[in-house]
Amino acid sequence: MSLPRIAIDAMGGDEGVRVMIEGAALARRRHDRFKFLLVGDEVRIKAALENHPNLRASSEILHTDGVISGEDKPSQALRRAKGTSMGRAIEAVKLGHAGAAVSGGNTGALMAISKLTLRTMPGIDRPALAALLPTLGDNDVIMLDLGANTECDSRNLVQFAIMGAAYSRVATGRAEPRVRLLNIGTEETKGTEELRDAAAVLKGAAENLAMSFDGFTEADKICRGDVDVVVTDGFTGNVALKAVEGTARFVADLLRRGFSSSLRSKIGFLISKPATDLLKHHLDPNNHNGAVFLGLNGIVVKSHGSANAAGVANAVAVTARLLEENVTERISADLARLGGSTWRMPKGLTGVQEERA
Amino acid sequence: MSLPRIAIDAMGGDEGVRVMIEGAALARRRHDRFKFLLVGDEVRIKAALENHPNLRASSEILHTDGVISGEDKPSQALRRAKGTSMGRAIEAVKLGHAGAAVSGGNTGALMAISKLTLRTMPGIDRPALAALLPTLGDNDVIMLDLGANTECDSRNLVQFAIMGAAYSRVATGRAEPRVRLLNIGTEETKGTEELRDAAAVLKGAAENLAMSFDGFTEADKICRGDVDVVVTDGFTGNVALKAVEGTARFVADLLRRGFSSSLRSKIGFLISKPATDLLKHHLDPNNHNGAVFLGLNGIVVKSHGSANAAGVANAVAVTARLLEENVTERISADLARLGGSTWRMPKGLTGVQEERA
Repeated sequence: MSLPRIAIDAMGGDEGVRVMIEGAALARRRHDRFKFLLVGDEVRIKAALENHPNLRASSEILHTDGVISGEDKPSQALRRAKGTSMGRAIEAVKLGHAGAAVSGGNTGALMAISKLTLRTMPGIDRPALAALLPTLGDNDVIMLDLGANTECDSRNLVQFAIMGAAYSRVATGRAEPRVRLLNIGTEETKGTEELRDAAAVLKGAAENLAMSFDGFTEADKICRGDVDVVVTDGFTGNVALKAVEGTARFVADLLRRGFSSSLRSKIGFLISKPATDLLKHHLDPNNHNGAVFLGLNGIVVKSHGSANAAGVANAVAVTARLLEENVTERISADLARLGGSTWRMPKGLTGVQEERA
Repeated sequence: MSLPRIAIDAMGGDEGVRVMIEGAALARRRHDRFKFLLVGDEVRIKAALENHPNLRASSEILHTDGVISGEDKPSQALRRAKGTSMGRAIEAVKLGHAGAAVSGGNTGALMAISKLTLRTMPGIDRPALAALLPTLGDNDVIMLDLGANTECDSRNLVQFAIMGAAYSRVATGRAEPRVRLLNIGTEETKGTEELRDAAAVLKGAAENLAMSFDGFTEADKICRGDVDVVVTDGFTGNVALKAVEGTARFVADLLRRGFSSSLRSKIGFLISKPATDLLKHHLDPNNHNGAVFLGLNGIVVKSHGSANAAGVANAVAVTARLLEENVTERISADLARLGGSTWRMPKGLTGVQEERA
């Protein structure tokens, strides 16, 4: 089966065309079935392709003049989307010209344009941003939402759990991913009403959903490797993700200071370099690049603005895996399985949705 | 000037009497002006004191039969408080028999008993739990609230900022601590309404309050050393703190694995031990033990349940510093300075308080 094309917003990311094209070329070298739609300034894309004949041979270029900048507010980005590399890359997914889009541009703009262009899947109220984080265990852990929705109700959290579990099945191969809600304690009474309500719904429905749900987890256990999916609202998830990233960098900086504090330490560092390289490999955000907007009619992957070519290649690989494994269809199937009486939220839990409807 | 006595809940903490007494003795060896009221089972306290004649000479024992357990819910703890070591240690502060209390027991219970016994200071709606975290800069950073209040309004956040700044002045000596609200971006439009409202109030009042306020910070910048006080609601603060702690442990575990992966790495480890010891020192939670409940009529410090004697000694040292520097009076003075028209929240920001009043 041939893999659908991946649309690359070639103008996104802090360093733009060069890094995006190099990343795509690197991904292409690893998997020669990958095909691309490169969206952006044709002259600059062609120049960047000169060093990458294999990528050139498996790509088509879609020229655009405009670029969404890091400063564009989501509302501005929506107005300008049509003529930009980001807007056209997402539109290509809608039109079926590509199976998925990857962008290193402005997250808020990417979210807004993706939502408006692709719309949320039937049964999903809001899309969520999900990423893989390293753990001490055998698998990465998936955390969502990482910032797409500042405030979430219990129904959103239940939907995030379903989407996260589907992603985890693809990423880890586990038949019943271990799903937990992020809270400030594991007792049933802890946290907000939204969390307690979502836990009650998931407890009742987990068996039906091919997930193992056992209530709450705390933020110090995200990376321990005993949980596969950590579900939270976008505010908390964004704070938790950044706290993890910041602390990993903090510890690496402390270690660097330590190792350069004396000649003895410097020598020790050189000898133990394989050990610290292992650490560096685990902590390099490029090795976990590629956050996915789940819950849309199509796949959109956010590559970190500061990702290098290896990072972009990782984001492309994540995208390809989601495409190959039909994650969107899987989420639909799970939503259908939850269907009927189970899916109706218990009375009193539906407040926000009813008002909206 | 003689320092008021510090009441020690000798029965709290995972290992109970022995560790609490050893910690107090260690603190006493470092600062011989410290005096203690040791609250708990007299027989066991006396036995633990046998190895610590200096501590015995500067302590009085207050016998109690009861102990608050880790499983006691706050409501149960409140009912049982009177006959317990935790309850009597806090009562001693209220009665003026001690200047402050330190406990390693159940946080929820400590919070509930402290609030009911000591009441919040005039001008403070809710107390907050604050702790010092290590940074790459010259000073530790203070983060609050760490879990005392699951949901907070803008007025709570403004009060936390004032209390955190007062603590920072004591802990770091900075005349105008750099205060920030924890958010998911630094733009004015980011985050919840509560955060935006609190930022507007602090922006207007910062000069009057001897703090440098410059809006929002993100969770990856908590430990960078360019902020002195990070203000947040108790849910987010608890998640951020645990994410920081968990990641530091995660990285240390990865490093340990790396160093034991080969003979070469093991040798490198031995040679570079001064470097890794520096890291260990920075990351050992015992070196940052002692979270403070701010905003009460009296000082209550929570020592981590799993702290060792050095950790307890640190919590005692934190307590003594807060006592010596009259942090409670300082917060009162700041609240008074904010007073008058500045302190009235702009219209529309006072919702919750007006309803409560």
